[in-house]
Amino acid sequence: MDGMISELRGSLGEAGVLLDAERMEGYLVDQRDLVRGRAAAILRPSSTEQVQAIMRLASRYGVGIVPQAGNTSYCAGATPDTSGRQMVLSLERLNKVRSVDPLDAALSVDSGVILQHAQDAADAAGLMLPISLGSEGSCRIGGIIGTNAGGLSVLRYGMTRDLILGLEVVLPDGSLVNDMKRLRKNNTGYDIKQNFVGAEGTLGIVTGAVLKMIPKPTHHATAWVCLAEDVPLPEMLALVRRETGDLVSSFELITPRSLALVAPPDGPLKSGSGGVVLVELACSSSRIPVVEVMEGVMGDVFEAGWAEDVMIAQSDAQRADMWRLRETIPEGEKHHGGSVKHDISVPIGRTVEFLKVGGAAVAAYDPTLELSVYGHIGDGNLHYNLLVPKGDDRLRFTDRIGRELAPQLYDIAAGMGGSFSAEHGVGRLKRRLLQHYADPNRYRVLRGLKGLFDPLDVMNPGAMVDPATGLSGQE
Amino acid sequence: MDGMISELRGSLGEAGVLLDAERMEGYLVDQRDLVRGRAAAILRPSSTEQVQAIMRLASRYGVGIVPQAGNTSYCAGATPDTSGRQMVLSLERLNKVRSVDPLDAALSVDSGVILQHAQDAADAAGLMLPISLGSEGSCRIGGIIGTNAGGLSVLRYGMTRDLILGLEVVLPDGSLVNDMKRLRKNNTGYDIKQNFVGAEGTLGIVTGAVLKMIPKPTHHATAWVCLAEDVPLPEMLALVRRETGDLVSSFELITPRSLALVAPPDGPLKSGSGGVVLVELACSSSRIPVVEVMEGVMGDVFEAGWAEDVMIAQSDAQRADMWRLRETIPEGEKHHGGSVKHDISVPIGRTVEFLKVGGAAVAAYDPTLELSVYGHIGDGNLHYNLLVPKGDDRLRFTDRIGRELAPQLYDIAAGMGGSFSAEHGVGRLKRRLLQHYADPNRYRVLRGLKGLFDPLDVMNPGAMVDPATGLSGQE
Repeated sequence: MDGMISELRGSLGEAGVLLDAERMEGYLVDQRDLVRGRAAAILRPSSTEQVQAIMRLASRYGVGIVPQAGNTSYCAGATPDTSGRQMVLSLERLNKVRSVDPLDAALSVDSGVILQHAQDAADAAGLMLPISLGSEGSCRIGGIIGTNAGGLSVLRYGMTRDLILGLEVVLPDGSLVNDMKRLRKNNTGYDIKQNFVGAEGTLGIVTGAVLKMIPKPTHHATAWVCLAEDVPLPEMLALVRRETGDLVSSFELITPRSLALVAPPDGPLKSGSGGVVLVELACSSSRIPVVEVMEGVMGDVFEAGWAEDVMIAQSDAQRADMWRLRETIPEGEKHHGGSVKHDISVPIGRTVEFLKVGGAAVAAYDPTLELSVYGHIGDGNLHYNLLVPKGDDRLRFTDRIGRELAPQLYDIAAGMGGSFSAEHGVGRLKRRLLQHYADPNRYRVLRGLKGLFDPLDVMNPGAMVDPATGLSGQE
Repeated sequence: MDGMISELRGSLGEAGVLLDAERMEGYLVDQRDLVRGRAAAILRPSSTEQVQAIMRLASRYGVGIVPQAGNTSYCAGATPDTSGRQMVLSLERLNKVRSVDPLDAALSVDSGVILQHAQDAADAAGLMLPISLGSEGSCRIGGIIGTNAGGLSVLRYGMTRDLILGLEVVLPDGSLVNDMKRLRKNNTGYDIKQNFVGAEGTLGIVTGAVLKMIPKPTHHATAWVCLAEDVPLPEMLALVRRETGDLVSSFELITPRSLALVAPPDGPLKSGSGGVVLVELACSSSRIPVVEVMEGVMGDVFEAGWAEDVMIAQSDAQRADMWRLRETIPEGEKHHGGSVKHDISVPIGRTVEFLKVGGAAVAAYDPTLELSVYGHIGDGNLHYNLLVPKGDDRLRFTDRIGRELAPQLYDIAAGMGGSFSAEHGVGRLKRRLLQHYADPNRYRVLRGLKGLFDPLDVMNPGAMVDPATGLSGQE
């Protein structure tokens, strides 16, 4: 290890290799303070070539490298193990916007750029990078690519995967794959970059990316829909998409309990009996009267008996107030004492069914438990969280729910063709779930891919899957 | 071979194994009549299980299987070699629409379903499958997935890849990967299905797919823009996208020579000095006045000096007339005596530059040659074709251009960050181009992926790449 560290210092310089316990601290604990690891060093390369040098050494010395971008993982995807033999590779110094090309509607960045800085660069060019997440002020491009991040506008613009035109990737052996194309169409062999999107740094290290931009939406219409009881939300979504010409950029559910965590009781934004749906239309042209369109569609929603009340934002400030409530729910949960999070997806048509069956399962397990449910119901993704009961120890409650209740919820989702991880990923916390729920032949391929790219298991070892040789399933 | 055929007859029945020369004929020649192969048999499985049985036998006997969907490849991706030892596996009997789920906006189909039948199923449910190609009446889902087909509305709805929610795939060893999910979000390990999209049947056989649908556009505005000279088309595209609220579903270029192949000289639809751009807006809601929006934006286009004339379709018949001209250009070329096709893409911002530099290269090579250039300029994809001179032998001209001029055109595209195959794929005709233009480490990964999935090289051998063991690049 000493030999490797000395070589690393030669390659990265003193500033590139942190060994001091105090300076290492922030890199060793996950975002939710659930997992703490140790590391032989924190590496902070400032160029793609330095990342290559690190991987060459890691392969030679057989040392596991844990890539870390904004360290905002919800499943400990970027936290080293407790051996103290792994090293964390932080992307934070790879932080340049490489180019903004408005006519190509393409943005080229280093993978350590903070999402918000990338958004700002697009905005300055009169365009938008349509990825919007709660953590956008601190998460980094490499992390959103590694986790194929979702967020608040997937139903319109897709997942991160859908917004990637090109990638630059360092393979575990230190070689570089340059696929930084700005093309919309390029059918020249397997699209290998897709393997790195959502791979959580287990197949290689993304060092650069070309991202798709869109015309900047300059006109919005935002509606706070207080829901009646038993609204068939998939039907409502289909109507709203159709009748707005598919200009819907967000369709978010907030249940009453989640809203109560963040809304002042005397505020103007109330819940309906069935909670709230926050609907937003976004448009780049003043020629399309989005507010009128929204008003018309909300008339249809009323007529269907789905709304008890609807407020349409009359100003940017009102729009911001609506979004603040939606976006501060995770903080509200934290302030309440924390929550156990489940990141469920089901086919869009079965979201309401999941809410009913899941709710019954929770009530049958323990009727005193409180659910905080909210999320991207427009794409079938529910953040289905259990509030930590007052007085309970957070970690022990997390552990108990994980063992006793979560399997029921995941089984219900799986029975509906759903997923135990819609957008958070697998990381270290959901490895066993992946093995349990994946189609067996798909799992065999997952391990074979890991074995092809990283036969020595030096890339984020411990996350996702272990390598296998070929598709045989043997290690 | 006799033993295998006898076992195949047992598994597939008589109707599933064609051996008769006359009945085999249509499967052995490519769409453009450029390549003719031979085969030991044509296999016509009628279920996924029969596809599995075929692949188990193929692996055991070491016989190459060439999957064929609609046989509309432009690069001989579905034509067997001349050894007579390969077998063609036709998907044509896997032709059931499995389910249409409007609330999930998802369509599940067998891979042998004809694209138009899939479109019809979506339409009957009040939705649209947004893949539109010239060959939609005969191409099949397995082919559009295998080639990651593009088409006429990629700038709005993406490539086929972007519209795939789930896949069912038979691996070369006969095992089945069931990933027929209808989820918009599912971050549970590497998205292995991406490897099969655009793999041209070299990694496995897609037997089923779940495709994304969208609200059916019921309102269109279609403009025939007669271009002035030297229009900065990327700027025009950016303006049209922005000012229409990004409702643009097509933005197609037709140069004067291409139009002359199909337009009656006394017809109402003329070319401008710089050719024509066909712009279409599509919208599912009557609340958005698309024709007014188009009229307003075309006012801007006039004001910029980019148009000599604009016609906006006043009826479905006029709209159909405009599209007929665009869509019959390939037939027009055939009628003229054929063409040598180049399927170029460059970053959107460099399309006009490519037209200039490419045109100069053609003129320098032979000033008497005639170019027919048209295509999806809204996504950077140009069909850059050379008409076969009157009196020349089509195959000899094709060969000469391929050796002497095409390399120059591809070098120009590559120098602009472009591609030698935007949407047609690699198949058998562009293998050497792939090897020449691919980033060397990317090429190494291509061969490693082929080796992982198909180490015995029984899946469409001869197309795309040969397998290698690991990422070492050795065979």
